[in-house]
Amino acid sequence: MSLLKNPRLNGVLLDISGVLKDGGRAIPGSIEAVRKLREAGLTIRLVTNETQITRRSLTSSLLDLGYSVQERDIIPPCPALISILQREKLRPHLLVHPDVLPEFDGIDQSNPNCVVVGDAGESFTYERLNEAFRILINLEKPRLFSLGRGRYYSDNEDLMLDVGVFTTALEYAADVRAEIIGKPQPEFFRSALIDMGIEPEEAVMVGDDLVSDVGGAQNCGLTGVLVRTGKYRPSDENHPSVHPDAIVDDLAHAANLILQSKK
Amino acid sequence: MSLLKNPRLNGVLLDISGVLKDGGRAIPGSIEAVRKLREAGLTIRLVTNETQITRRSLTSSLLDLGYSVQERDIIPPCPALISILQREKLRPHLLVHPDVLPEFDGIDQSNPNCVVVGDAGESFTYERLNEAFRILINLEKPRLFSLGRGRYYSDNEDLMLDVGVFTTALEYAADVRAEIIGKPQPEFFRSALIDMGIEPEEAVMVGDDLVSDVGGAQNCGLTGVLVRTGKYRPSDENHPSVHPDAIVDDLAHAANLILQSKK
Repeated sequence: MSLLKNPRLNGVLLDISGVLKDGGRAIPGSIEAVRKLREAGLTIRLVTNETQITRRSLTSSLLDLGYSVQERDIIPPCPALISILQREKLRPHLLVHPDVLPEFDGIDQSNPNCVVVGDAGESFTYERLNEAFRILINLEKPRLFSLGRGRYYSDNEDLMLDVGVFTTALEYAADVRAEIIGKPQPEFFRSALIDMGIEPEEAVMVGDDLVSDVGGAQNCGLTGVLVRTGKYRPSDENHPSVHPDAIVDDLAHAANLILQSKK
Repeated sequence: MSLLKNPRLNGVLLDISGVLKDGGRAIPGSIEAVRKLREAGLTIRLVTNETQITRRSLTSSLLDLGYSVQERDIIPPCPALISILQREKLRPHLLVHPDVLPEFDGIDQSNPNCVVVGDAGESFTYERLNEAFRILINLEKPRLFSLGRGRYYSDNEDLMLDVGVFTTALEYAADVRAEIIGKPQPEFFRSALIDMGIEPEEAVMVGDDLVSDVGGAQNCGLTGVLVRTGKYRPSDENHPSVHPDAIVDDLAHAANLILQSKK
């Protein structure tokens, strides 16, 4: 594995699920790795497509695991989506996890003219999918917003179907193309960089999702590092189109590589 | 609307849901239409992707509505699938409606090496989809069989998500291409024609699913007629690639057209 060789690195974007934690436990070495990266003067943001809980709850769960994070370090897709809904005067029908509903307080949801699908987990019932589908198919210009394209994630080492699967299902049912908010959407990475005040060449993304984290970041000019934790699978190392700048065992190894690259 | 102009017509293939019945009621005029077609000497088969109930229950429900049918008139996809499973010594994990499970009695389902998805209705829970996904992703050569590509069907005038939606979801999640058994698969139409002892040019298919019924039949050389009942939507009349040989209000009108074409 070659070193990253990028002395200009000033910022690190980290995925949360599968990089910092797997289900309810911290991934060994990751707490120390985040601390070392910060101590080296790197700006850190946690860019996540996590939409099962609010940013506040997510921060709290990371603090409980021993991470030193603040709410403003976390960049989830919901705030970006809410800006779009407000700007375009859209009234969403929400197929999202009940715990994330408070994020949409203050958004008019009467007589919906679009559908929003997030990672609803157990709330993805036949009845709720049917309800979202019927709204879409009856709109003259159906609009479907989705908080990610993820296929699956790892939860305590069990693979779990992610929002992208149900997005694809609704796209097929209603013959519509979803507008994705979150990774791998370029605007999402760019908004994180603006927030950090750095250029793409100064940033590295570390994730366990080859296409969404690594490929998405590389498409925006960032360095992309894949970790062999979370939902990583050996077949990721032979993907036809996405080739990480580095593949390492975990965030601890990624942090060492990043710190070496700055010397 | 031009006449079909096919004096060679000897057989009629009919979809059930949306042509003969909608939910629990017979579509007005359809019982009489089936009787007239039979009296004119036409061979009739009911080709359906219905996989929520057994062939026996389906026959019984049609008899209850007033149709004169026998079990052998109905050609559902399950028997074709079961032949494949037996021939290839496959042990399926079944994500199907509980009422159709008896069709698979006698098929070894231990240690599954493929997944079968049918129209499971309310049984499409997050948990059951996850279970099917995990089996697929852990197979060295994942095989997914699906009992149709339908997007939705009409049940008492409510649109309901169909098996194709969940097939697409599992395909995306596990990065696999499903093998479809049923309409619009050419082998499925051909097996119906063989059963009837006629050639494609002698047969007309009447359905409410533009792509699966009409397009599928036309691809096999049959005449395809779309009815404006069931899940029909006005936009079906302007589809970019599928153009029915005729579009009529209902099966009663289709039967008149078919009988005129033989004169």
